[in-house]
Amino acid sequence: MRFSKFFAPTHKEAPKDATLPSHSFLIRAGFIEQLGSGLYNFLPMGKMVHDKIKNIVKEEMDKTGAQEVSFSFVTPAEFWKQSGRYDVFGKELLRFKDRKDNDFVLSPTNEESVVNMVKNKITSYKQLPLHLYQINTKFRDEARPRFGLLRGREFTMKDGYSFHSSEEDLKREFDVMEKTYSNIFTRLGLNFRAVEADSGAIGGSGSKEFMVLADNGEDDIVICTNCSYSANIEAARRKPKTTNAEAPEANMMSKFHTPNMSTIEDVANFFKIDKFYTIKAVIKKAIYEKEEKVVVFFIRGDDELQEVKALNACNALELDDANEQEIEKANLVAGYCGPKDLPEGIDFYIDNELKDAKQMICGANEKDYHIIGFNVTSFKEERFKDLISVNKGDKCPCCGGELDITKGIEVGHIFQLGQKYSSAMNATFLDENGKAQPFYMGCYGIGVSRLVAATIEASHDEKGCIWNKQISPFELEIIISNTKKDEQVEFANNLYEKARDLGINVLLDDRNERFGVKMSEFELMGFPYAILVGKGLEDDEVEIVARDGLEKTKIKLEKLEEKIKEIF
Amino acid sequence: MRFSKFFAPTHKEAPKDATLPSHSFLIRAGFIEQLGSGLYNFLPMGKMVHDKIKNIVKEEMDKTGAQEVSFSFVTPAEFWKQSGRYDVFGKELLRFKDRKDNDFVLSPTNEESVVNMVKNKITSYKQLPLHLYQINTKFRDEARPRFGLLRGREFTMKDGYSFHSSEEDLKREFDVMEKTYSNIFTRLGLNFRAVEADSGAIGGSGSKEFMVLADNGEDDIVICTNCSYSANIEAARRKPKTTNAEAPEANMMSKFHTPNMSTIEDVANFFKIDKFYTIKAVIKKAIYEKEEKVVVFFIRGDDELQEVKALNACNALELDDANEQEIEKANLVAGYCGPKDLPEGIDFYIDNELKDAKQMICGANEKDYHIIGFNVTSFKEERFKDLISVNKGDKCPCCGGELDITKGIEVGHIFQLGQKYSSAMNATFLDENGKAQPFYMGCYGIGVSRLVAATIEASHDEKGCIWNKQISPFELEIIISNTKKDEQVEFANNLYEKARDLGINVLLDDRNERFGVKMSEFELMGFPYAILVGKGLEDDEVEIVARDGLEKTKIKLEKLEEKIKEIF
Repeated sequence: MRFSKFFAPTHKEAPKDATLPSHSFLIRAGFIEQLGSGLYNFLPMGKMVHDKIKNIVKEEMDKTGAQEVSFSFVTPAEFWKQSGRYDVFGKELLRFKDRKDNDFVLSPTNEESVVNMVKNKITSYKQLPLHLYQINTKFRDEARPRFGLLRGREFTMKDGYSFHSSEEDLKREFDVMEKTYSNIFTRLGLNFRAVEADSGAIGGSGSKEFMVLADNGEDDIVICTNCSYSANIEAARRKPKTTNAEAPEANMMSKFHTPNMSTIEDVANFFKIDKFYTIKAVIKKAIYEKEEKVVVFFIRGDDELQEVKALNACNALELDDANEQEIEKANLVAGYCGPKDLPEGIDFYIDNELKDAKQMICGANEKDYHIIGFNVTSFKEERFKDLISVNKGDKCPCCGGELDITKGIEVGHIFQLGQKYSSAMNATFLDENGKAQPFYMGCYGIGVSRLVAATIEASHDEKGCIWNKQISPFELEIIISNTKKDEQVEFANNLYEKARDLGINVLLDDRNERFGVKMSEFELMGFPYAILVGKGLEDDEVEIVARDGLEKTKIKLEKLEEKIKEIF
Repeated sequence: MRFSKFFAPTHKEAPKDATLPSHSFLIRAGFIEQLGSGLYNFLPMGKMVHDKIKNIVKEEMDKTGAQEVSFSFVTPAEFWKQSGRYDVFGKELLRFKDRKDNDFVLSPTNEESVVNMVKNKITSYKQLPLHLYQINTKFRDEARPRFGLLRGREFTMKDGYSFHSSEEDLKREFDVMEKTYSNIFTRLGLNFRAVEADSGAIGGSGSKEFMVLADNGEDDIVICTNCSYSANIEAARRKPKTTNAEAPEANMMSKFHTPNMSTIEDVANFFKIDKFYTIKAVIKKAIYEKEEKVVVFFIRGDDELQEVKALNACNALELDDANEQEIEKANLVAGYCGPKDLPEGIDFYIDNELKDAKQMICGANEKDYHIIGFNVTSFKEERFKDLISVNKGDKCPCCGGELDITKGIEVGHIFQLGQKYSSAMNATFLDENGKAQPFYMGCYGIGVSRLVAATIEASHDEKGCIWNKQISPFELEIIISNTKKDEQVEFANNLYEKARDLGINVLLDDRNERFGVKMSEFELMGFPYAILVGKGLEDDEVEIVARDGLEKTKIKLEKLEEKIKEIF
């Protein structure tokens, strides 16, 4: 491609709302442009990167035997009503009426469509497993679209859905997909981690997220500095904490007067004990579809409640802080709440690490009183949940190594959905005994357009994008220093043709622009290599610049072809 | 691909609303499925065909230097308001509001988006020409979605837009595109014609449609049986009609009493003349954005008014028949209306072929009177328009050969838009004299998903689809007659691997089904060839079936590889 004929309009200024490098560089370098809040057009270079990513995703998916389909983007609302998500999904689901006043949605995800596609067509366990996927446009009417392609409203996603006759077979496919996703992100040249994840709104049991490691990532990831364990902060586990501090002495459980000691600090100081031996009560208001309830979460005094874990524990739609009136109305005593003798009817959950804990100090559910010598036994199993935040320095649940916390951008997510959607939509197969059963389903997503931005978020410098060869719009740019010099133009043209003959995807900057402009646009656009054809020609030399690091190397013309072959 | 693992659910019954073979076969054979009115999902085979078409379109477009982009499907309404189409486009333009109550549309076409993309980025004639295209989802909220993929609401279109500094350069690109489209449809194996066309709602001057010839086509196409002239019936021209019949004798123009002779037949019989010498008045009600007017179209007595031509002549939004009251109110006399002495202020147009016609008989604009000896002179040039329908047997405007009428399906349309959109949206470049001018634009569409159906409409028999090698999901199917026979299974498996090694896209029907079922599904799905592996193996034979014609040929095993190489 000759730059003089290529549509890649650049901008000196970043958009005002661009806080992230990927957002700023992709627009400034002419890869994308914004046409509305969360809505982007892809210019030629953006489209090239997008499609290279898409093709790698498709190749790896096809290798596994998954079959590509394409779902209508505009979807009748009736399917979403069948699954029950029409009312639950919130405003992110864009709803509209057609000219005949029928209800439709713009698909944000396609569980409903795929169940409808397979239902009544796959009828026997003999036809299973089946994996269908598409790479298609999605729409989510985000409340706050931001960060360019990282959180747009219209975006491209690869969404795949698998159907199985057993949970074991679903687990097998889940593992295949974990491997496939790793292959994809490896081919894309990304530094990523597959992390244990919370399943969120999609539902289902086991799930993993694929995170590109990047300083500006929205997600906190817990990683083990010793083994391969990693998890989203929302799902991270740790080896149960221990302490060398001495346990409080109390031969038997008893109530203690603790006036005006409503914080863990107060209590620990008063009793001169480690907070490890205290129980903290976090009182929340849980919002359900039809009611609101006060719920208490008990954790160790030196831990913090992890909100997503808490939400999952009580299975609510949302958690809010409970205010004084609500706490009082529930007959709870703020600052003095404990698991023993809670008022009847109060929902509560206890962190797993408190199970069987001995000699604990906790609120007595009575103003100005704590209980000492409390043993966390005699609670029903279902009260115990994983409720706490994991911190840097905690121990790995797998190997005991030290945990660290880093930032990541979610680019893929794989779920074991189980029978949630197939049950809701009554999609069944006949098992070996001729009995109708809902399909076991998995679902697997990759944010294709998001990957365009995530790649740059993880790979840029202060001057612009740094693409790798796999997905760069061009592998090489040849820059003519001065287009008024015939010998430079002629040499560059020949080199351009030669590079094309070698199968290299090359851009020839043949524009009548100053060298400085061309060079800074090369740095902004970020192709892996440039060859500078300039004055050095007089000494039979050109320069090769590697974008990553911007190191320049002079090459004698007789060695140039060899060098090019070596690089590409 | 092994059929036992392939998702291609077939149906015995066609959908109730399927009146066309393509609609019925594509659904019955498991290429597509309907999920709502005018909304279709593509199953794996449909997706394969769709993408093969798409890739051919992309390859040929890229060869011309056109650059691929991708426009957001959801588009802010403000762009459509700028171009003035927001109010004009009608209900086909799907409009909706997002969660913040802003107006959006689902793109049915992207003139607005592309002008916005290029505006202020291409600023000089030196940067022109430029051609941007995308292959993307579109939505038109059709009043009556029908015929499966031929008139759906959501569909895939290749839409390209070119920008030029002069009308000549636009014309040059238009010719390049005509050639490119011909290459595309030739590669797709289609029997097509590029026909002169009406420019319709998109606007602009010259335009051509690409029609696949098919008995069930929605469009009438006029073709010359002698030369290459062809045109949509709405735009068809002919060599002006002549007659050998004698002209009526009248030495001078005069009024004649013709009581109760309000039809052309009455008048021609009464005067004993050929209808060629009469002038027919067609009175219509023209509907404009803000008013309605009675308009009269004058054509020869033996011609018919072509509605689209009439609409274009008076530049109205719509034409309706005028009723008695409306005719009377306009002071016109039904049955006796003529171009001479029309009441003042009446809009009228005269067919080009009547220009300078002599010795004509026409209504006198007075009840029961006609005028004889009328010469159609002394009208302003702008009154004369092409208004008439071309008929089978008329003469070709290019070579004088005989014209015929056939049916076609529109699969492509290329337009010279001129400055319509660039002017409306104030998108300009600086010309050689430094003067700002609106871009000259062309636009070029191909119905990608429509082509999936058009191909089958043009190529099927009573048993099912007949795909050509270029776009068939599979080039070859190997059918195991009886999967209980180990030798058949083993032979077919080896053949399958061999075919794959030869680079043939092959489907192995390894299902445990009766041979009859497999064969009739092959006929329904319509891959170009099948190899039947059956009892003949005992005599070292298999059969090859060509789908087109269903001729079976026995082949000795030793000649099989040679035969396969010959075919593919």
